[in-house]
Amino acid sequence: MIVLKESISIDKTSEIPVYLQVANALIHHIRHGRLRRGLKLPGSREMAALLKIHRKTMLAALDELMAQGWIEMVPRKGTFVVNDLPEIKPKKLQEQGPAPYPEKTLFQIDEKRVPPFPLRSAIAANALVINDGFPDIRLAPTELFIREMRSLSKQRSSKTLFGYGSPKGPDVLRETLASFLSDTRGLPISAQHVMITRGAQMGIYLAGSLLLQPGDHVIVGDPGYFGATLTFRQLGANINFVPVDDFGIDVDAIAKLTAKKKIKLLYVIPHHHHPTTVTLTPERRVRLLELAARYRFAIIEDDYDYDFHYTSNPVLPMASLDHHGNIIYIGTLSKTLAPTFRLGFVVAPENFINAIANIRKTIDWQGDSLMEAAIAQLYRNGTIGRHIKKVVKLYRERRDHFCRLLQQALGDHVSFKIPDGGMSVWTKFNNANLKRIAAKAAEKGLIIPDPSFYNTNTNFNATRMGFASLNIKEQERAMEILTKSVEALGIRN
Amino acid sequence: MIVLKESISIDKTSEIPVYLQVANALIHHIRHGRLRRGLKLPGSREMAALLKIHRKTMLAALDELMAQGWIEMVPRKGTFVVNDLPEIKPKKLQEQGPAPYPEKTLFQIDEKRVPPFPLRSAIAANALVINDGFPDIRLAPTELFIREMRSLSKQRSSKTLFGYGSPKGPDVLRETLASFLSDTRGLPISAQHVMITRGAQMGIYLAGSLLLQPGDHVIVGDPGYFGATLTFRQLGANINFVPVDDFGIDVDAIAKLTAKKKIKLLYVIPHHHHPTTVTLTPERRVRLLELAARYRFAIIEDDYDYDFHYTSNPVLPMASLDHHGNIIYIGTLSKTLAPTFRLGFVVAPENFINAIANIRKTIDWQGDSLMEAAIAQLYRNGTIGRHIKKVVKLYRERRDHFCRLLQQALGDHVSFKIPDGGMSVWTKFNNANLKRIAAKAAEKGLIIPDPSFYNTNTNFNATRMGFASLNIKEQERAMEILTKSVEALGIRN
Repeated sequence: MIVLKESISIDKTSEIPVYLQVANALIHHIRHGRLRRGLKLPGSREMAALLKIHRKTMLAALDELMAQGWIEMVPRKGTFVVNDLPEIKPKKLQEQGPAPYPEKTLFQIDEKRVPPFPLRSAIAANALVINDGFPDIRLAPTELFIREMRSLSKQRSSKTLFGYGSPKGPDVLRETLASFLSDTRGLPISAQHVMITRGAQMGIYLAGSLLLQPGDHVIVGDPGYFGATLTFRQLGANINFVPVDDFGIDVDAIAKLTAKKKIKLLYVIPHHHHPTTVTLTPERRVRLLELAARYRFAIIEDDYDYDFHYTSNPVLPMASLDHHGNIIYIGTLSKTLAPTFRLGFVVAPENFINAIANIRKTIDWQGDSLMEAAIAQLYRNGTIGRHIKKVVKLYRERRDHFCRLLQQALGDHVSFKIPDGGMSVWTKFNNANLKRIAAKAAEKGLIIPDPSFYNTNTNFNATRMGFASLNIKEQERAMEILTKSVEALGIRN
Repeated sequence: MIVLKESISIDKTSEIPVYLQVANALIHHIRHGRLRRGLKLPGSREMAALLKIHRKTMLAALDELMAQGWIEMVPRKGTFVVNDLPEIKPKKLQEQGPAPYPEKTLFQIDEKRVPPFPLRSAIAANALVINDGFPDIRLAPTELFIREMRSLSKQRSSKTLFGYGSPKGPDVLRETLASFLSDTRGLPISAQHVMITRGAQMGIYLAGSLLLQPGDHVIVGDPGYFGATLTFRQLGANINFVPVDDFGIDVDAIAKLTAKKKIKLLYVIPHHHHPTTVTLTPERRVRLLELAARYRFAIIEDDYDYDFHYTSNPVLPMASLDHHGNIIYIGTLSKTLAPTFRLGFVVAPENFINAIANIRKTIDWQGDSLMEAAIAQLYRNGTIGRHIKKVVKLYRERRDHFCRLLQQALGDHVSFKIPDGGMSVWTKFNNANLKRIAAKAAEKGLIIPDPSFYNTNTNFNATRMGFASLNIKEQERAMEILTKSVEALGIRN
């Protein structure tokens, strides 16, 4: 039993209980043939003494081994390593004790299967962040949301919200969203046309997964939303980039492509295109719908920030015009509330909703029913309507203030248009190198969105500057740092 | 303008505001060429009169059309349909007004892309349900969970939980789970080996998605967990079924397969196999690990109900023995708390965790950070530990009572073993036809799990009877109905 004494090292400071450390070490030796099958073990007292542990701890370790079937007790004979293990040649004693957890996988990971999302660098807790266009999370009606969760959880009738439910989401939220969307976006839909997802991203994945086989052709805008492009690539699709200009995606270019190859899917953000924030003109909308009907391809219309429009009513979605059932309309509530509430939706004909609901089971089974039902309550009691009204007013002011400051701070170094809606300003840096400015600003405690996020195809010297999450004071501090960064770099016009 | 009067029907009872109905109808007519490009529109007063609506409503509709760019106002000339629309031949007037939402998609849905999850029929609210092995949701510590969410949401330091975070989950939960798992399952891991997912299902998908290309070979048990099998099929894998007997999955059969073809992945539930609840013997575990190391295939070890074991300590996972880094260890908290808390984890070497984190972005971006941090608090303050202790004791009693009743009620019609752990009894129906009994019981208000859920490959006359969610009284009522159903069918031994 020398093997025991020499090779079992016990770490009393570890979080793993001592009896488990001993049991694991013994299993390790059995597996590596150093305690061979059929071997009679010493008595528990003797082993405890050898290992300098309490006898009770030793007994617990032996119990564990017995329960797991590594050793067996033969009455009046003693304790043995079980006999029906495969014969193993003992390995050298150098390989001692329980090994640390493996550093990496034994098998090769195919890097082509890993979508190349840009790494976000860690952000210092006290840094000021101009984000990519997110809401101000400090304004989210979290208190009211938690109150609804609590009140629902106490109702007997809501016990189904705790069990397994439909992958489409709870009926109450599907019905509520259907009427909210017909009310505000001219979509003549009811609950069966709605599925609740986790943010827009899950909707993009589910639609892509249903529609695309490896090798199928997809059209996306350039520049365009990298999250969608990487998802379609992950599904094995061929990506066809089509330019996006000041009037939205170039429909002539789409027409040429559709004439040349079988297009299965077009992904488009007609309202506040990501990243450039442009809106697709009615003329192009009409032509796009006609092309889709003629060539029978599907359109994913991603309308991620419909509710945030400042100069007029928001432009109604293309899905409100569609009469052919080839628009898959996707939205999110992460922008309306806060990203931590992972909630989005897909609106599509019922056969499509039924199909993607089954696909959802393979990735996520279902949503958080309790949370989703609480959100439905916030719609029904008017909280969300009031919240949108309040923040739209505030974000309009923040937009105007931000654009004024940006002009003052960077002057001719940048060109931008004041966006009609959304939460960010697409800011082109003229002769000034954005990456250098961003690096200098980061040194001084200001983070601005990494433009490499948007460079899925072309490289350009521009970024999205989110204005909604910063109050006036924070905006001013941010612009001060930007001004100083430009000065420090000695950039002149 | 006869077209207006005749073809715009306004529904004042609709949830769509009247101005939007009018705007949409006008867009519809413009799109179909009945209001041609360049057409001068009548004045708003005249149009309001024609449509019998208030002039303010008409103005709102025109504003909407203007904002969207369908019409333009030319000072001192009037309002016109914009000129740069494509020329469209007017369609017949029969196609009137805004159409209803399309019944189905224009494009064909490829049914092969829709995983054939069995449909669950609607269950009457007052029905008694023997489920497939779920916890009693009435015992979930919901109140404490919501309290943690509320208290976290009020802390300034937790504002990052509201924004975008890591797809791996918040650090606090990864660290907490790492020490919980080393403590209780002998896994010598730290936070970088842990990723938080939504239930076990997302872990299965992510691992499969990284490891499998269409056509790759996967091994699963037969009978086995249908959720995993359908997921690998969805990813295009070839499924190889290997028998599962009383000692777990048949490792001889696996050895034969690995010698014949390149296996990329094996999916196994060594502890409480689903559906049959058997546990893999140590001998087979050792041989399986050797095969995996020799042939360099990955093993997904799904340990969905580790914490629920009644006769001894739970059997330690294979991942606690592994020293080669080819075990992907997956668990869930849906069974520990309630399915509505969609929380699971993957434990694997760091390079694997990093890779699947990027894949997660394509399907779901990230988890609910606030909820996940609240769960971490419940681990840290001991709530989850106490909860597990409490329910394990209760479920053991429920198991024993349920098995006694089952024997009394169905006698020789069934054969089963009292399971060592888990939340269900794998019940084989001998000569009695399970489907007929289930149908009869449903008539009488008792639902039992549909055996077709388990028949992914072979058909058999057996089902999982969940005991954990029913208290003693409910168990007795269920068994009464079962007895009566058998009698009503005149089934004899």
